[in-house]
Amino acid sequence: MNITINHQRRNLGVSYRDRWRRKKLATGSYSMKGGTGQHSYVQNSSLQKTHMFSIDHIWKFLQNLLINNPNTTIRIADLGCSVGSDCLTAVNDIIEAFQVYYNDKPSNDINTLFRLIPSKKHYFAAGVPGSFYGRLFPRASLHFVNSSTALHWLSRVPKEVGDINSSALNEGRIHYSNASNVILQAYSDQYVMDMEAFLRARGHDEIVSGGLMFILVPAITDETLVSQTSPGLLLHVLGSCLMEMAKMDIVDQAKVDSFNLPVYFTSPKQMKELVERTGCFTIKRLERLETVFPRASSGAQIISKHTRAIVEEIIKQHFGFSDNDLDKLFDLYSKRLVDSLSIFTKIEDTSFQMFLVLKAQRRYY
Amino acid sequence: MNITINHQRRNLGVSYRDRWRRKKLATGSYSMKGGTGQHSYVQNSSLQKTHMFSIDHIWKFLQNLLINNPNTTIRIADLGCSVGSDCLTAVNDIIEAFQVYYNDKPSNDINTLFRLIPSKKHYFAAGVPGSFYGRLFPRASLHFVNSSTALHWLSRVPKEVGDINSSALNEGRIHYSNASNVILQAYSDQYVMDMEAFLRARGHDEIVSGGLMFILVPAITDETLVSQTSPGLLLHVLGSCLMEMAKMDIVDQAKVDSFNLPVYFTSPKQMKELVERTGCFTIKRLERLETVFPRASSGAQIISKHTRAIVEEIIKQHFGFSDNDLDKLFDLYSKRLVDSLSIFTKIEDTSFQMFLVLKAQRRYY
Repeated sequence: MNITINHQRRNLGVSYRDRWRRKKLATGSYSMKGGTGQHSYVQNSSLQKTHMFSIDHIWKFLQNLLINNPNTTIRIADLGCSVGSDCLTAVNDIIEAFQVYYNDKPSNDINTLFRLIPSKKHYFAAGVPGSFYGRLFPRASLHFVNSSTALHWLSRVPKEVGDINSSALNEGRIHYSNASNVILQAYSDQYVMDMEAFLRARGHDEIVSGGLMFILVPAITDETLVSQTSPGLLLHVLGSCLMEMAKMDIVDQAKVDSFNLPVYFTSPKQMKELVERTGCFTIKRLERLETVFPRASSGAQIISKHTRAIVEEIIKQHFGFSDNDLDKLFDLYSKRLVDSLSIFTKIEDTSFQMFLVLKAQRRYY
Repeated sequence: MNITINHQRRNLGVSYRDRWRRKKLATGSYSMKGGTGQHSYVQNSSLQKTHMFSIDHIWKFLQNLLINNPNTTIRIADLGCSVGSDCLTAVNDIIEAFQVYYNDKPSNDINTLFRLIPSKKHYFAAGVPGSFYGRLFPRASLHFVNSSTALHWLSRVPKEVGDINSSALNEGRIHYSNASNVILQAYSDQYVMDMEAFLRARGHDEIVSGGLMFILVPAITDETLVSQTSPGLLLHVLGSCLMEMAKMDIVDQAKVDSFNLPVYFTSPKQMKELVERTGCFTIKRLERLETVFPRASSGAQIISKHTRAIVEEIIKQHFGFSDNDLDKLFDLYSKRLVDSLSIFTKIEDTSFQMFLVLKAQRRYY
């Protein structure tokens, strides 16, 4: 198959805040805020719509597939689809020969997603529950896979960093941003394990020979520190808000010490190595997409709301927070973000959205 | 394909109360009670487990399919699966070459269903939202379809029977049981329209040539009246409870007049005619399965609870009932069922569970 993807830069503007889109996706039971209420993900994810990349070109690829396989149903998967409807708009024009699978964890609010699928659509929709770090589909059953802003969620927090008896306990922080190398290494090891499992499940088993996979994932420049990026700073501020609450005796500090967000930011170098090592795909394209950083202080409120939609459930579960406690945390977070805006504008942000086009290698079995 | 189905009677015992299993499945937005709480369907559907018919024989059919199609994924659909886990137990032993689609309306609580799917299963699971009276799957994509205790739910209430300005208004009743012929005819017309759409969608489009469909559906003997059956009586009692509440000024009588349950009980004769007329299937088997009627007065409580799990949402939506109102209704229903138990044991019940095995005819296109 001859694949030409003229990826158009102008369609690829990605909001800075999009990095905060996803919940923990894999084995845990955290979920993004479901339903359609004030703090729900659906009401706070309009920013996501900006980053639907170059649908025209996916569409052309799929049309070609159909021309070459007139009697086949073309099967498409959206891995880590969440409850947002952004993945739906991507395939609204797709015709009857297509079956689209929306995947997320069983704990995800698939009810809301299903209610958002238009009933008069021109494709067949199905929901697939499960972690995309494991097998989800039968062998050679997918033609095109999309995973957008999902793969930065690890399958789990590296055990040692949340263990209060471990020497690698991530004390006073909720992420490896600004933490010691031991913590960073634990996160990185988990990421390598997860991504290898992901690439093997898709590339070795589920995608047909020559099938395509699009990945959009937040990343940082090779050999830079996450603490020097805006997502790193944002996580650091959230962590320090929890520490402030610990000092005000609203939460137990041990609870903060044992809490960590299973979010990892890879780099192009690491991703290339992983794809080469697993050997199921060839990289057809690897692009760095610019992010749009909110400059006005009004941005703090938006970041805070967006973050809340994503981490509310995970925080609730760990800290046993009431809605009132959550309001306190995110009000504080909004304030501290305003304070930090001057830092954000000063640092040379080495984070970006990495867009990958991978082609499944021919298998001989 | 050579198909032998030695359907074993002893595995086919169906509880009387199973008839009450399903919510309205198609175009409306009613849903069976979701979640896992006290009044949830999951907590009140253990009776369903008795009617999983002859899994051994489905299994043999599927194994044969796999032997004849070693490189194909065998695709199975459970239409109108609801939130219960009974459809899951049916396929727990199925191996990796199978993909199982669980279908129900978008308003169904698919979240609960997904959480009940074991994570260490040996097949691939997907949920498909939509009414099974319309197209759900790509052309020739299914090998085996199961629809158990779902097809007695019409896609909608026939309009005229709930229209307070219509001469066919079903006054003082919530079903065609004990109603005039005009009402019965309206229900029957709707059923014919729905079943033709169902048979065409599956038989003409979705099932592969030679694929099988199992249908288990409550039915009544040819040329008998539903009012002389236990489901007919049960619906009549529920309707008269609502009328009692109208007399006590708890509900508006016009609300009762305009309320109808979209449930229809077909007969073997009608079903045969429908299958022959649509011409997509041949009937390989049509069996009458016995029902187990609860004899002790304790049965009333169980029937009431079971009914509540199914009709709670539909009643809530129409009457705007609070939980307290629902408690009142179903307490009353339990009492009136106890009163009626002597009638139930006396009538010669002409209702039963009809089991059909349909084989999709070869298509030439």
